[in-house]
Parts: sequence; structure tokens; C-alpha cells
Amino acid sequence: MKQYLKVDEWSIIEESFDPATHEISESIFSIGNGYMGQRANFEEQYSGKSLQGSYMAGVYYPDKTRVGWWKNGYPEYFAKVLNSTNWIGIDVTINDTVLDLANCEVKNFVRELNMKEGYLSRRFVAVLADGKEVQVEAIRFVSIKRHEIGAIRYAVTPLNFSGTVKLVSYLDGDVQNKDSNYEEKFWLEVDKAAAADVSYLTLKTKKLDFHVTSVMSFDVFKNGTKLDVQPAVAEREKYVSSEVVVDANQGETVAVYKYVANVTSRNFGLGELVEAGKKLLADAKAAGFDALLKEQVDGWAAKWKESDIIIEGDTSAQQAIRFNIFQLNQTYDGSDDRLNIGPKGFTGEKYGGSTYWDTEAYCVPFYLSTADSEISRNLLIYRYKHLEKAKENAKKLGFTKGALYPMVTMNGEECHNEWEITFEEIHRNGAIAYAIYNYVNYTGDKSYLGQYGLEVLAEISRFWEQRVNYSADKNKYVMLGVTGPNEYENNSNNNWYTNRIAAWTMEYTLEVIDYLKANESARYQELVGKLELKEEETKKWQDIIANMYYPYDEERQVFLQQDGFLDKELIKVKDLPQENLPLNQKWSWDRILRSCFIKQADVLQGLYFLGDRYDLETKKRNFDFYEPMTVHESSLSPCLHSIIACELGYQEKAYEMYLRTARLDLDNYNNDTEDGCHTTSMAGTWMSVIQGFGGLRVANDELVLRPFIPSHWTSFSFKVMFRDSRLNVSVTDENIIVTNETDVPAAIRIYDSSYTVNGNGEVKVERATATK
Amino acid sequence: MKQYLKVDEWSIIEESFDPATHEISESIFSIGNGYMGQRANFEEQYSGKSLQGSYMAGVYYPDKTRVGWWKNGYPEYFAKVLNSTNWIGIDVTINDTVLDLANCEVKNFVRELNMKEGYLSRRFVAVLADGKEVQVEAIRFVSIKRHEIGAIRYAVTPLNFSGTVKLVSYLDGDVQNKDSNYEEKFWLEVDKAAAADVSYLTLKTKKLDFHVTSVMSFDVFKNGTKLDVQPAVAEREKYVSSEVVVDANQGETVAVYKYVANVTSRNFGLGELVEAGKKLLADAKAAGFDALLKEQVDGWAAKWKESDIIIEGDTSAQQAIRFNIFQLNQTYDGSDDRLNIGPKGFTGEKYGGSTYWDTEAYCVPFYLSTADSEISRNLLIYRYKHLEKAKENAKKLGFTKGALYPMVTMNGEECHNEWEITFEEIHRNGAIAYAIYNYVNYTGDKSYLGQYGLEVLAEISRFWEQRVNYSADKNKYVMLGVTGPNEYENNSNNNWYTNRIAAWTMEYTLEVIDYLKANESARYQELVGKLELKEEETKKWQDIIANMYYPYDEERQVFLQQDGFLDKELIKVKDLPQENLPLNQKWSWDRILRSCFIKQADVLQGLYFLGDRYDLETKKRNFDFYEPMTVHESSLSPCLHSIIACELGYQEKAYEMYLRTARLDLDNYNNDTEDGCHTTSMAGTWMSVIQGFGGLRVANDELVLRPFIPSHWTSFSFKVMFRDSRLNVSVTDENIIVTNETDVPAAIRIYDSSYTVNGNGEVKVERATATK
Repeated sequence: MKQYLKVDEWSIIEESFDPATHEISESIFSIGNGYMGQRANFEEQYSGKSLQGSYMAGVYYPDKTRVGWWKNGYPEYFAKVLNSTNWIGIDVTINDTVLDLANCEVKNFVRELNMKEGYLSRRFVAVLADGKEVQVEAIRFVSIKRHEIGAIRYAVTPLNFSGTVKLVSYLDGDVQNKDSNYEEKFWLEVDKAAAADVSYLTLKTKKLDFHVTSVMSFDVFKNGTKLDVQPAVAEREKYVSSEVVVDANQGETVAVYKYVANVTSRNFGLGELVEAGKKLLADAKAAGFDALLKEQVDGWAAKWKESDIIIEGDTSAQQAIRFNIFQLNQTYDGSDDRLNIGPKGFTGEKYGGSTYWDTEAYCVPFYLSTADSEISRNLLIYRYKHLEKAKENAKKLGFTKGALYPMVTMNGEECHNEWEITFEEIHRNGAIAYAIYNYVNYTGDKSYLGQYGLEVLAEISRFWEQRVNYSADKNKYVMLGVTGPNEYENNSNNNWYTNRIAAWTMEYTLEVIDYLKANESARYQELVGKLELKEEETKKWQDIIANMYYPYDEERQVFLQQDGFLDKELIKVKDLPQENLPLNQKWSWDRILRSCFIKQADVLQGLYFLGDRYDLETKKRNFDFYEPMTVHESSLSPCLHSIIACELGYQEKAYEMYLRTARLDLDNYNNDTEDGCHTTSMAGTWMSVIQGFGGLRVANDELVLRPFIPSHWTSFSFKVMFRDSRLNVSVTDENIIVTNETDVPAAIRIYDSSYTVNGNGEVKVERATATK
Repeated sequence: MKQYLKVDEWSIIEESFDPATHEISESIFSIGNGYMGQRANFEEQYSGKSLQGSYMAGVYYPDKTRVGWWKNGYPEYFAKVLNSTNWIGIDVTINDTVLDLANCEVKNFVRELNMKEGYLSRRFVAVLADGKEVQVEAIRFVSIKRHEIGAIRYAVTPLNFSGTVKLVSYLDGDVQNKDSNYEEKFWLEVDKAAAADVSYLTLKTKKLDFHVTSVMSFDVFKNGTKLDVQPAVAEREKYVSSEVVVDANQGETVAVYKYVANVTSRNFGLGELVEAGKKLLADAKAAGFDALLKEQVDGWAAKWKESDIIIEGDTSAQQAIRFNIFQLNQTYDGSDDRLNIGPKGFTGEKYGGSTYWDTEAYCVPFYLSTADSEISRNLLIYRYKHLEKAKENAKKLGFTKGALYPMVTMNGEECHNEWEITFEEIHRNGAIAYAIYNYVNYTGDKSYLGQYGLEVLAEISRFWEQRVNYSADKNKYVMLGVTGPNEYENNSNNNWYTNRIAAWTMEYTLEVIDYLKANESARYQELVGKLELKEEETKKWQDIIANMYYPYDEERQVFLQQDGFLDKELIKVKDLPQENLPLNQKWSWDRILRSCFIKQADVLQGLYFLGDRYDLETKKRNFDFYEPMTVHESSLSPCLHSIIACELGYQEKAYEMYLRTARLDLDNYNNDTEDGCHTTSMAGTWMSVIQGFGGLRVANDELVLRPFIPSHWTSFSFKVMFRDSRLNVSVTDENIIVTNETDVPAAIRIYDSSYTVNGNGEVKVERATATK
């Protein structure tokens, strides 16, 4: 772990160039707009180590490679997120020397990710082999207003000589995936044309025929004056380029403005791609770079208004939390309900797939509190739209009814191929049910239940109904062969969390049925018909709820993670020699499985989700038992521990856990940031501030706050959207001040007292009084 | 399941050609000689469905393809058995028509695997599109006297016309593997030369550089007279050929005799391959086809003398048992102690690898009783030679000492890549220890213990010592996270069989230590030094033996397969609708895992291995409990059930189980024979006759027999080698007659009476008296 980034409130800044950390920076400085995104690869040629990555949301490849002995019911494919056309490329040649930071001295290097305004910039002086020095300034962004548009300004200034600057702007689809077996390439050329004004390249993916057309155009300026140049164009397989050569005297700046539109067959007909791309490109170019950048700055200002968190007294924490919020907003903006939140966003290809239970367990709470409720609603509808595929999936596994959502998916189909995950990590179904509860509880939007919610809930309950079986030995319902959120146990029996969330799903489904029966009887009748819901089913659910088996240790009075957990040697992480960590890099898989060590909250996940059902003492006993055995080798783990620690008053532990999640990527904590950022876990970091330190919950239609200030901070404040109002919650040593930034009044509770924050009004509570 | 083969005592015979069953026949009619082997592909071109397969023992490819999320400690590669140079090929053109059984009418087709004499023959009349009829007679074998040599006689006779017969004899290394991802090919050309007299082709495998040189030569005869022809030779990438065109009048027979030598870098230096191949070929050709065939017939006669079983009154059973013995003898002859017994022998590429625990659990007993003890000793030494790699493997998984043998291997390294097998199916270590006991008990060769045995036993005991852990909850030693022989359970805790065989290994190791201490004290001291064996270790083993936890059901008084087994719904296979079977094709993996259904003996495996430690009542209770839940979807399962059923007097059940194993491939029982034969399970079939119906055991240096005759048979007899004597055991309704075919007297027990069978003598016991 090397901390090489400058601490700054609003930017991520790297102040010198080090090839050893370049791939990490490529991940961290990534930019995206929910539609496309890319790693911070250099525009100019770079022959050093680099992971090239340009990604178009929703474009993937179904890899059917098999190894070992395939089992019946295994998914058909593993979805690979595809590295697509490199559209940022600008090759630079100074006289006859190609600019390549791997082959020259680099001075005054500064790379900056401006999170406030949403762009990536870079400047440096390159000292070429012959002593010639050129200054380069590059800035680029992907527009959050015009999803298809990317824009680059790339400026070159000879500092100590006069000569020629050759600039080759290109689109290159002859790219690779790092995770490709046998160096297979996944793109085929469809069409291309290189011309002086506008060039384009259309590729399609193998097998699924996703088409992507990239259209580029560019202007060249010298010292601010546009040049009337006639570029030399070139084409080769999956490649088009335009070349200009400009004479530049010492001190003169040659700048290229490159505009690109990337359109895909997900949004346009095959015959329309080129024209659509050209049109979008022409509009953008007509607006011009500065206007596009202005749009970008304004767009990001609006985002920050909804989601910013201010931490006083700890700039490092300030930077970190903004980085997390920024990456989340770059990854998903809710505008396309076919999309979801990939675990690495647009920062890498690892893990494939786009949708995990991370979305429901971690991201939904973030978007609920920081954006219009439409966005989280769309995340829920995404699953509703996949209900038929989830039912097919359950059928494929031999269930006669019900739905099993996939563990990993691009389009509703399961696309991960390890049985212990695909078939067994079924708690995901519970998280998907829970997200419905969470959404309705947070927004008060009960209309969702009749419109979409019950169908999903009922099919999930039906799945649980069949997934348990009655144990004559225990005289209880048991659930065999599951993997819980703690993936360091596989194929275990009676995973407490899974049993609990299964029973909870059935409880909530019955509650929703009662609600609809009482309040939307026509729709309810319609749904009974559509679902063919039978009384014997709901009775069965009640029976399972009443007779579910929960492993429990009477002596310690803790829930047992699963049957047999106490057969393990119970060792604390702190008693394990450091050289064993991280276990997933140091230990073999079987040793991990046999050990007591926990990758990620499991019992605690249940106590978090169902927090209002368990008293503090219960939470304390379980936290005290499990936390010391938890290695937090999932990026999703520490945040939950932090939140529960806050609740238990373990403030130091809470802050320790917060630190592990907050700067996970910025400090490359898990030593894998070069593969991409841990995007979904960033929502967990946000949760640990808002739900942990802020103590935010929603109960009885009130927004509940139980804040405290970590001792390392002087104060903090955060924005939170709640039922059409936007509140700013400011926590200082003295006061808790909740300011309503909208016209809509909001019902809140601070600790145990209720208040109404009037439209544009404020509630100020003295902490000394309130916390008593 | 289609039974299309003719029942015959000594041959497998197919009497008409059906493309639909051709691939099954290709498996069944395979030939091999322990060094090389091949599927029964046609010599002439065949454009129909076919699985081409020529295999050289010990030549493999380490496939490193990865899918999903690789885990730490996973094996580096999956070993692929490679399809190698097609050396049988002879293209036939009649006038201008290529002979291809997919494109003509086929009459009088007969394919025969002559098991008595060890060759494959085929004859047919092809009616070409233009009505021309040709008769073809082909015979080929791979020599069991000259391992590198294959010989083919291929004769063509125009029946109703006169014309030209073009014969192209070739070597073609441009072959594929069915299990190759991305149609990757694994062979590279090294050298070749096509010449009129002798042509050769040298290829090497990718990555491991195994070199294989095939050298061919041929003679052409017309009506029995050798022709002086000058073949036209041709070469292309990985291919050499020689072509002759012969005029043949109606009724004239043109016959080509093709001789091939296949030599590999496993046995020769790279520079010697071509010369060595040429020399071997020249010798073989000089001997001539008829002499080679005579050698083959004599060689097989000697094999049958040692291993034949005669069944009277049931030709189908007679054919089946000989088929099984024949395949085993084709696969392994003990002459190369670097080789072992692949699960498919030379009949297919599936499963990769060459060595499974099948060898110790099933094949060692076969070779112990049917061949010189040197052969089973070599199988044991094979593992001894891999001890260092097994120790490395244990280290890789985090053990500080001890040895874990691989689940699948080519050279001592693990080469299978599913964690639940590789890391967890550790009972294999027990089978390897047990084979040492079995060998010593059978042969009386206690010298093996000091020479090799103890080292292996001690290192395996050390593995078990660390693989268990003390459960404070149970106050016993437990073993977590294992997969037993029943692979329909994964990652279970306290698998009874594994716990039992682990404790047994330690018991036996201590017994061997005591024996060596008392009888070979110098060697013992040497071994203590070499092994750095400490008293604290043997004490620890004693403690584990005394305090091992064995799951047990007090109510039913049965051993429990693993913890939690009684949480399952206990259903009998007979109560499961037939359409669910076989489960591995009809059910998803998770459903199989959660069910009670058993792939293969697990508790029963233990009761079989340690049969002298459990009384009949215990065996009966466990058999009665587990047998009804067993689906026998491992080809290794029914034989054990058959043996135990025999012991329990369940004669009908024993016969039913025997039938499932005996004709498994001949009747394509599991619907997968087209992939190759279930070679190792054939040893199980042999066991069910000898140890089941024959009741053969070895105890207290006596060969014990407790035979009975299945009601479907009139009598049976079998050969058995025992301590330098070869006995023929004949069981009729009236008598049990044991004839000694050697000079060496043998101590035997029939039921409960002991006898000595003198050299060349006989013991005859009336069954009516004996079984009382």
C-alpha cells in the first residue's frame, strides 16, 4: 500500500509520474457518465504497463469456455464486460520522435480528477531523448448531459525548440480483454470510413452482435487560432485515423479538440447508427468544447447539491467520501432501466456481469437518499422486468414454481459459473425482496407494492417455500446447501442469515398481501388471478415462518452462522500472525473454508437489515462474537460493521471500519485497485457515514437521526433526500441542524424526539440536550 | 439403451452398420497394449459422426484455461489426454469414388473384437453410388509383445466390376481433441519425410514438448502376391502419405499391409526417435504380419491363463466379464512404473488425467489376483515415487508437514481444478494407505513396508493429523469440509468414511512402526531419521484414534454419512419417479447436493475396506439404510454393493448390482459409452465376481473363499494368483474345486475350514457340507 495521491477536498491529484502505480491511477482517475466510461489511459501512445479499458454499459460477451467437469444446470456462459473501441487515442510525434511517457523523462507531471466539475486533466513536460522539451496539457470528459459524447482537448507546446508536431487522432477497435482466454478478441469490423471531416468505425461483438459505432471529428488550433488543415486519413482493420502535421515554433501551442460520439445498437437500429452518431457529434461539435465543459460543470453541481457530504477537520476523509459519491454517480444515473451498477463500474473488466445483490443491499440505500426516488424505483423495476427470467432460472434448477434471481447478470440470465455461488448464494433473493421493503419504507410509495412489488415478493416466497425442507430429525424447517453473504463458507446447512431473510420475505409478503387486500382490493384480486396465488401457499408460508430452524448457541446466546460453526477452532483475527493476511491471497481455499474466519458480515447482515427487530443487547453479543473473526476481505464488509458499531456506541471501532472502506481504492488497501475500483462498495462507505455516524434510519414515516461525530472530525454535514424534501443535516459538537432546502416539509426524529422541518426551514437541536 | 451387440463367449460382435451407434462401437471395440491404444475408428475415410482417438500413454497437455473466479491454491492446469497422430489411416478410392461408409450402402457388415486373440477385425461390402460393389476386410492390432508396433491388413475386392483401387496410407498429426476450447490444436510439427519405403512424422506437444514419432511402411499384395509398386509420396503440414494405384479385376483382392511404429520422447532421446522408430518398424516388418499376429495370439493366451473367468449358463455374463478383463489388460500391463490406469484407458479422452483413487480401490485388487505381484507393487511404487510431490501439494494447501496425494494426476501433480474435489476429496489419501495394507496382506510381502510403505503411511498420517481439528463443542476430533466417495455431497463435515479411513491410516501406520521396530530395527532407525519421526507425533495419532468423532444415529444404529445427514428428506430411489434418473442428467447440482441420494458407496466403502472389523449385523443395518438411497451414478458404485450384498446373503440384490456393472459399456447403461469405456470400473466388475460371488478374501495368510452361484448361472470358475501359486477355483452346484496350476502349495480356507492345495494338486469340497 503506497499512498501517493495528494489530499485535496475536491480533486484526486497525482503530482509525479510513476509507471509502477500507473495502472492503479488508471482505475482511480476513471471517468464515466452512466452510459459509457473509461479508465484513465493516456491519449498518446504508451508502451509501459497499462490496462486499456473503454466500456459501453450493457455491452458484453457471453463466454462459454468450460473447464473441469461441467454440471447439469450450470449457466450457459460467463458474461465478460468488454473493452471496446479506444476512442481517446491521439498519437503524438515531435519531429520524428513518438511521444511515449515510457521512453522519455517526465517532468512537472500532474494528473487530476476534478470531481466537482467532472473532468480528467493531465499536464507534464516530456524531455525527449534528444533533449527537446514539450509541454502537454490534456483534458477530457464524458458528458453527463449528452451521454454519447466524449470530448478531449490535447495541447502540445515545444518549450526549447521549434519543429513539427504530428497528431494522429484515431478510433481503434482492435482491442483486447485482459480476461480473454487464448487472447481471443471479441469485436468484428462491420463498417468504417475515414474522411477529412468526420470518420467513423462500426464494430460488432461476436455472438451477440452488439453494434457500436464511434464517430470522431476534430479541430486543430495554434495559439488559439483554428487552423485550416486537410488531414491525411488512413484505414486499417478495425481502425480509422486522421493525421495532421503542424509546424510549431518554440512556445507555440498546438491544440487538438477531439469530439467523439459512441452509439450502440442498444439504442439505435443497425441502419441508423452512423447517422445518429454523426448527428450527435455534429451537435456537440457545434456547441464547442467550452460549452460542453460548461454543461458538465453545471451538471455535476446539480449532482453535488443532492448528494454531497462535508467533513470538517479531516481533508483525507473529505476527499475519500467525495470520491466514492463521484464514482457512484459516474456509474449509474438511473436514466436507462435496462442498466445496473457493475461491481467495477467503468473502471475495469474484472468480475464480468453488471448486477449483483450489491445493488439492492448497498446501492439502493445510496440512491434512495441522494437522488430522486425514481432512480431507486428504476433499480427495483429492473428486477421486476427480469421476473420471468428468474422464474425460468428456478425451473431450470428443478423448482416447480417461484423465482430465483441470478447472482450475476447482464440481462436477467444467470451468468456466473461456480455452483457454490450460482446455485447456493440464494440470499440474494432475500436482498431483492428487502429492497422493496426498504424502498417503500423510505419513500412511502406504497403504490409500488400493487404495481410491481407483490409479484416479485410472492415468487420469491414461493422459491423459499420449496428451498426449505422439513427435517424430521429437528422437527423444524431447515435449509440445506447454501452459501451466505460470508462466501468463506460454502454449501453450509442452516445459514442463519439465509433462513432468517427467507422467513422475513414470507412475513413481508403476507403483510403486503394484507395491505393490498385492505387498500387495493381490485388490484389485489387481479394479482391473485395473475399469480394464481392459493390459500394453501400462504398457509404454508405461515407454517414455515412459525417453524423455521435458527441455529443458536445457548451458552453464548448468539445466533450461529450455520450448523456446525462451533466445531471450528474459534480464533480471533488479531491472534493470527499478520503474514496470513489477506487470507484469500495467502491461504488455500479449503483452509479458508475450514476456518472460522469471516469474509463479510453474515449474521450481522441480518441484524442490520432487520435492525428494528433485535435489541441492542442481542446485537452487541453477536457483534462481539463475530466481529473479531471477520477479516473483511469483501469490500462490502466493513461498512456494515461500522454502522452496527455506531449503534452499539463502539465509536473507535466504527471509525476503524469506516477507514477501511473509505479510502479502499485511493490507498489501494486490498492491493488490487489496478483491476478497477470497488464501485458498489462505495455505496457502503456512504452508508457508514450517513447510517453509521449520522444514525439515519426511516421508521414510521419519519427520518430518524442519531448522529455522533467521530473524534477525528470537527463536524460533518450531509444532504439527504426524503419524501420530496432535500435536507441538509449538519452535525457539530454543539448542535444538530437540519435545514430544509426545498418547499416540502419533512417529518424527522432526532434521537427520540420528533420534529417537522418546514419548507426552507430549519430545526436546530442542542446535542448536549438531545443525546441525553 | 440399445443392445445391438451379438452375445458371444469370446468376441464382441456387431453385425450391421448403424451410424447412430458408431461412436459407441468406436469405444467398445478399442484396442490397446498398455503403451498405446486407440478407438475403433475406421481406417478409410468416414465423414459421419466419429470421435477420433489415438492415445499414447503418458502424453498429455496441461490446459491452463480459466473460467470464473480462480481461487488461491487451485491447480495450475487440467491435464488433457491428447488425441495423437492418426496412424491407422488408409484412404481408399475405387475408380474415382472415395470409399466412405457414410456415403454408400453397407452390406454384410461385421465388426469383431476378438478378445481371446487380441485383435479388431471388420468386413463389409460397400455398394457405391454407381452400383459398384467392393468387399473390404480389415484386421488390426497393437502388439502386446512389441509395444510400439501397430499392424493392419486391409483388403479390397471388387465384386461386380473391374477397375482401379487407389490406396493412400498416411500418418496425420493434424488432429483435434473433442474437449479443446476454441478448437485449439495441441501438436506442432517437428520433422517429417515421406519416402517410397518408409515415411515418418515427428510431432511435439505444445508446452510440455512431448515428442512422438510415427514411422510407417507398407506392402501391397494382389491375390496374395506382393506387388512391386513405387508409391507416390506426399507431404503437407503434419502429414505424410504414400499412394498406390492397383488395377483389380472383378474378384481380385488388393491387400495393403501397413506397419507403424510409434515412439515417444518418454522412452527415447529426441535425436534417437526417428532411428529407433525405423529400427522397430524394420524388425516388425521383417517378422511380417502373420508372425506378429501369432505373437499377439500367444501373448493373449498367456494373459487369459492368469485372469480368465468362466461362467456357465449365461453367455451374456461370460462375454461381459471377459470384456472387462480384456480392457483392463489392454490398459495397463505394469511394465512402465511411470504409467497408471486412466479412467477411460485408451478408449476416450474424457476426464483427462491418468490416475485416480480408482487405481488403489479397484484396480490393485484386480492385478493382485490376476497377475504377478510385481505389477501391483509397481502401482504402489508409482505413488511412492510421487511422495515428494504429494508433500509439496500438502504444503501448497498450508499444511506444515505430511502428504496429500492428488485426486487426478499424470505425474504426481494435482491436475484437476474443482475445489470440492481437489481440496476436499481427501479420502483418496486413505485409499492409497489402504492399498499398502491390501498389498502386504495379499502377498505377504512385508519387505515392502520398510522399503517403501512406512514413508508413505507416515506422511499420510501426518496429513490427517493436521486435517482434523479439535472441536471444543463436541469434545472430539472432527474433520471439516470434505467430500467423500459419494460426490453428491460436497464440503460436508465429519464424513464418516473419511474420518474412519483417517483414523485407520494412523492405526495401521502405528502397527507398521511396531512391526518394523521389532523385525527390521536397523531400517526402522534409518526411517525414523529420514522421516524425522517424533514420539509426540505417534502420541498425537493415538489421541486422535481414541477421540475421533463418528456421526452415528442411535435410533437406527447406523453410521451417518456426515453431520446433518438426517436433516435431509430420506427418500428411497424406488419411490422417485423414473423420469428423474439419472439425477446427474436430470437434476441441477444444488438439488442433487441437497437430496439424500448417493452417487456411490460412502459408509459402505468403509465397511468394505474394513470388513473384518464390523459384524454382519452392523453391515446389514447400514446396507439396509443406505442402499435404497443409492443411485449408483458412479460406475464404481454397484460392485461394492454387490460384494456386500453377497456377504449379507442378499443374492438377488447382489446379482442385480452385478448386472449394472458387468455390461455397463456393452449395453451403454449410463448412455455415455460414446465418450469411452469406464475402464477402471471394470476392475470393480471383476471384484464383484471374485470377491462377491466367489467370496474371496485374504486373512491370516490364507486365501478365503465363500462362494455361491447366482441363480442365473449353472457354474463359474476363475483364476486367482496367490503367493506364487495360480489357482483355478471352480464352483458348481455340487462342489467347490480348487486346482493348483503351479508347483507352489497354497493355504486356503473354504468357508470356515482350512486346506492346503498342493502344487499341481486339487482340493474338492462338497458345497452341501461346506456351507453348513
